[in-house]
Amino acid sequence: MVGYQDLDSFPTWSEEEKDQFSLKVLKGLIIDGVRRANSGHTGGALSSVDFAYVLFKDYLHFDPDDPHWVNRDRFILSAGHESMLLYTFLTLVGWLNIKDLKAFRQWGSRTPGHPEVETPGVEATTGPLGQGVGMGIGLAVAESMLRARFQEISPQEEALISHFTYILAGDGDLQEPVALGAAALAGHWGLSRVILYYDSNSAQISGKTSRADSTDYGSLFEGFNWHVQEIDGHDLNQIREAIEKAQVVDRPSIIIGKSIMAHGTATMEGDPATHGAPLPPEEILATKELWGLPSEPFYLPPEIVDHFRTRFDALRKNAMHWQHGLQKAQNQPSLGKLWKTFFNESLPNLVYPDFEAGSSVATRKAFGIVLDAFAKDVECLVGGSADLEPSNYTGNFATHYGDFSREQRTGRNFAFGVREFPMATILNGIALHGGLIPFGGTFLVFSDYERPALRLAALQNLRVIHEFTHDSFYVGEDGPTHQPVEQIMALRAIPNFQVFRPADAKETAVCFKLALQSTDTPSALILTRQGVPVLDLAMEQVEAGVSRGAYCVRDCEGWPELILIATGSEVSLALKVAERMQDRRVRVVSMPCWEIFDAQPESYKRELLPLRGAMRISLEAGITQGWERYVGPQGLMIGMDRFGASA
Amino acid sequence: MVGYQDLDSFPTWSEEEKDQFSLKVLKGLIIDGVRRANSGHTGGALSSVDFAYVLFKDYLHFDPDDPHWVNRDRFILSAGHESMLLYTFLTLVGWLNIKDLKAFRQWGSRTPGHPEVETPGVEATTGPLGQGVGMGIGLAVAESMLRARFQEISPQEEALISHFTYILAGDGDLQEPVALGAAALAGHWGLSRVILYYDSNSAQISGKTSRADSTDYGSLFEGFNWHVQEIDGHDLNQIREAIEKAQVVDRPSIIIGKSIMAHGTATMEGDPATHGAPLPPEEILATKELWGLPSEPFYLPPEIVDHFRTRFDALRKNAMHWQHGLQKAQNQPSLGKLWKTFFNESLPNLVYPDFEAGSSVATRKAFGIVLDAFAKDVECLVGGSADLEPSNYTGNFATHYGDFSREQRTGRNFAFGVREFPMATILNGIALHGGLIPFGGTFLVFSDYERPALRLAALQNLRVIHEFTHDSFYVGEDGPTHQPVEQIMALRAIPNFQVFRPADAKETAVCFKLALQSTDTPSALILTRQGVPVLDLAMEQVEAGVSRGAYCVRDCEGWPELILIATGSEVSLALKVAERMQDRRVRVVSMPCWEIFDAQPESYKRELLPLRGAMRISLEAGITQGWERYVGPQGLMIGMDRFGASA
Repeated sequence: MVGYQDLDSFPTWSEEEKDQFSLKVLKGLIIDGVRRANSGHTGGALSSVDFAYVLFKDYLHFDPDDPHWVNRDRFILSAGHESMLLYTFLTLVGWLNIKDLKAFRQWGSRTPGHPEVETPGVEATTGPLGQGVGMGIGLAVAESMLRARFQEISPQEEALISHFTYILAGDGDLQEPVALGAAALAGHWGLSRVILYYDSNSAQISGKTSRADSTDYGSLFEGFNWHVQEIDGHDLNQIREAIEKAQVVDRPSIIIGKSIMAHGTATMEGDPATHGAPLPPEEILATKELWGLPSEPFYLPPEIVDHFRTRFDALRKNAMHWQHGLQKAQNQPSLGKLWKTFFNESLPNLVYPDFEAGSSVATRKAFGIVLDAFAKDVECLVGGSADLEPSNYTGNFATHYGDFSREQRTGRNFAFGVREFPMATILNGIALHGGLIPFGGTFLVFSDYERPALRLAALQNLRVIHEFTHDSFYVGEDGPTHQPVEQIMALRAIPNFQVFRPADAKETAVCFKLALQSTDTPSALILTRQGVPVLDLAMEQVEAGVSRGAYCVRDCEGWPELILIATGSEVSLALKVAERMQDRRVRVVSMPCWEIFDAQPESYKRELLPLRGAMRISLEAGITQGWERYVGPQGLMIGMDRFGASA
Repeated sequence: MVGYQDLDSFPTWSEEEKDQFSLKVLKGLIIDGVRRANSGHTGGALSSVDFAYVLFKDYLHFDPDDPHWVNRDRFILSAGHESMLLYTFLTLVGWLNIKDLKAFRQWGSRTPGHPEVETPGVEATTGPLGQGVGMGIGLAVAESMLRARFQEISPQEEALISHFTYILAGDGDLQEPVALGAAALAGHWGLSRVILYYDSNSAQISGKTSRADSTDYGSLFEGFNWHVQEIDGHDLNQIREAIEKAQVVDRPSIIIGKSIMAHGTATMEGDPATHGAPLPPEEILATKELWGLPSEPFYLPPEIVDHFRTRFDALRKNAMHWQHGLQKAQNQPSLGKLWKTFFNESLPNLVYPDFEAGSSVATRKAFGIVLDAFAKDVECLVGGSADLEPSNYTGNFATHYGDFSREQRTGRNFAFGVREFPMATILNGIALHGGLIPFGGTFLVFSDYERPALRLAALQNLRVIHEFTHDSFYVGEDGPTHQPVEQIMALRAIPNFQVFRPADAKETAVCFKLALQSTDTPSALILTRQGVPVLDLAMEQVEAGVSRGAYCVRDCEGWPELILIATGSEVSLALKVAERMQDRRVRVVSMPCWEIFDAQPESYKRELLPLRGAMRISLEAGITQGWERYVGPQGLMIGMDRFGASA
């Protein structure tokens, strides 16, 4: 066995010796990083490192000079707690450095406890398990769809978008049901460029996985129509062969790598205690000696870096070749235009459909009409419903643009089935890819199913649009399981998440536009099942008002005695109440979006909702908790603080 | 074919003719019920009715005179939208009647849009898909555990608890990932008395399931270690054979019944439009003619009821036999005592562990200590962690009482794996069964994953205890994906759900006790990762205070100028602040539970938090939205309204 003392003769080492020593150096960095931070995850990183080494060194396509190159292969570390593994490879790539590794888990560092998408080379914020699998599949969906769109126009050229998506998942990831739901969709869609490496090290925080799991994942993924391989996760040749096979099959591929937690350590191999902790100092010393590493921490000789970068010249050439291809494409009118369609930052001019004042239109229906209008011009808008197509009014969109499917990669609609949470993770992945704006629909009450992914969209500043219909007890006969009560307020609780509850069809159109324009924030449109009257206001007035989050839809002469603050279907109710109180000075405020209103200048807020003199009443068909903010201490809150009933 | 005109000769009909005509009568009731309500679900009820007929008529064990008999077989309609199917059978059983069927989906009826557990014969509130599978598995867990506990004491006797759990699920149920996660656990545990009938009718709201799904569910469930059968879902003999096989295997069993939506209708067989709507009147007329039914609605001749009740004498005898067994058992000291342990309504006397004032104890650690103390006396307390055993401090419990497993049915701990949502549905099922009090632990931030099940626990008035640790940005290095910000407030948003955030170890003990005593309400205990000082208050004082939701932990002489209202770890912070403001009159209030405080008499609330004179400041390491309720307009809210960072 070669060791650091033999490094002078590195050029004469066999390739295998070079790889094996490189791996030990990398494992040393992982161990040292977690030890230095005095918290983090060691065991799993050491069981997946062989796969990551082969992938990063020999297969992953990227531009070493530009982590944001749009046609790069994507690598998602779904097992986000193994962040030190990823940071180590990004250091070898050159996007991070040893200083970053030393700053692991510290304030302001580029190497936080779990990977965050802001770090160059990190494709998604991961850590909440299972979701990385869904986001990876979303990335693969975006790749597949964009590739098909470009090839449709220019079948003889190399596609401008054409890459693989690799996902590294651990036992906990696949125990999370959302991963299985997303896998079912990937199999159904026959996505051929997503390769999931499952590091099956049989240990988790609470001990051996055998305490909690006897699933045969091979049989499972075959059931999902995936290509399944099982290999020794510590055999580099088996890993290479498996990746190459996976690249050419016509289905998504899972490689189950049987591995050993804390692989290769002196005395702690297979020990679940290594999962979420640094190795003890004496174990580190003994292990380094065993591996032929010097005892000083963060050992990374230049020979190892150079060996890792053997492929860099080729990668750079490849990226340059692609740039030429892009330039050529941009000179062709049709291809150039298509490129702009997907990768131009600005939206086309959006034309609102007409809605007749006074007519009764459910805002969910208005959403469908606006979707049909916007989708024509915003060609990068893609999405679908979690099996509520007729209820969400996305049926026209589906019919017109077709389902994304194995046969039709250019279809812009997704038939997600009853899989809200997988849908939301896939939408996040599509948004992460770039080039497409994704939306997804379900009932408001089922936003609960998607919540972990809504949070992760907000945390990653992703433009994802959620359509939530059937927004109150007006759902009626379906009963309390289907009547949202607490959901609107619970969504407002998520930081950096815009909750829109439009009062009518016109406001729906404006809210949808604002959501499309919010490049750094996910949005939810909360929509009625039942018809609500279209406001008798000019579209310009509605647009100006909604853009400030709240505005006056009916005012009185002089100083108001009473201010009714309402959202959604309750705005027309408030207007009716005001109508009946002709002898009183009543102002009616529609407040479709708290988050936008809260960001307005104090002067606007005070003008609309003066602190004194007027009694303020909120009307919203949901819990009142939180409305104190706007009605104040003498105010009144009208809402619904209990579950509903079927009728 | 026989028809209603031939009913006079009913006694001479073959068994098959009787069954087939009974089925048509039942299907007629389903069609009529949905039509009368003018909303509801027809198609799926008609594809599953054959299975339900065989099950209810020939296999399901119950006491016709007592829907609450504790040893009954459980039947869960996970596809809750097929409620009319269940109500029809409950009418034949005699627990509902034709009047109820006519009142389908109306205010105050016993036949709401989706089944609600308050209706006799409805074992769980269902409708949010996938969760019925998890609750059914929870019921089977409870049965298995209770059976083992009784047999341990009295192996020669018939077990007092010994029954099957049947689940009826549709395509949408199995698309929901939570069903798969729960199935993985059922397979791992080798639950042999749970039989899942999957009505595979290949149609859903958005059309053919082939738009969204190509999963091979046979392969999937084999991967989960289930026994798999695939049959013609309209062949009564195949259904009978399949049930009998499923009853004797040593694993959970899935029967995949290939079926046709709206089976047997005149012209609408297989039409997805029949999923969520009544049949058109002309289709009903044509279908009834085809089936040999009279055209008038709600036709149910006594012959059909009698035929259905063929087994009732035997069922009654069986229930009586069981009652004798129970009486005999109650006369045996050990068995009688055990029965009381599980089925006595009142809790034993709970002894609090000692905590030394001033010492630093993380409230999660205190939870572990209290759990160990309470679990000794409360033998019906069972639960576990979603793979965060060391972090949730449930390790002692696991070691002491053992894992529930294929080999050890009496184990009181569950190793759930990384499956928060399946865990929560299974806990709901255990609570529904009766006899056991379930708890489950994870990180607070992952309460998001469980949210749909938390809501369903609240809606069903279930005593389920959730332990949520790592409750704020004090989680630190794990970063924003693991730092809860909005979760506490979002949990408070759920009606009938108690959120406890104890300030120290003593409050933790009292909150745990209150959660155990709350027979009709789920509770969450929100606990710190980091140590917090034990309050220097007598346990009686803490108990009295926590029992009112909020109380004074430090007061000043005279009227307070400043009131600090804090929860959890911020209470000790508030005490420190008050300490430093010796020259001011500062009161510190600990408010571990909003819900309980809100229910106190107005006088207590006003005394603790006077409306005037004192400036009120809230301190909670989470979003401030909602705290306006307690601090008022001049108040100040100290919290965290953005995502955290890793450090």
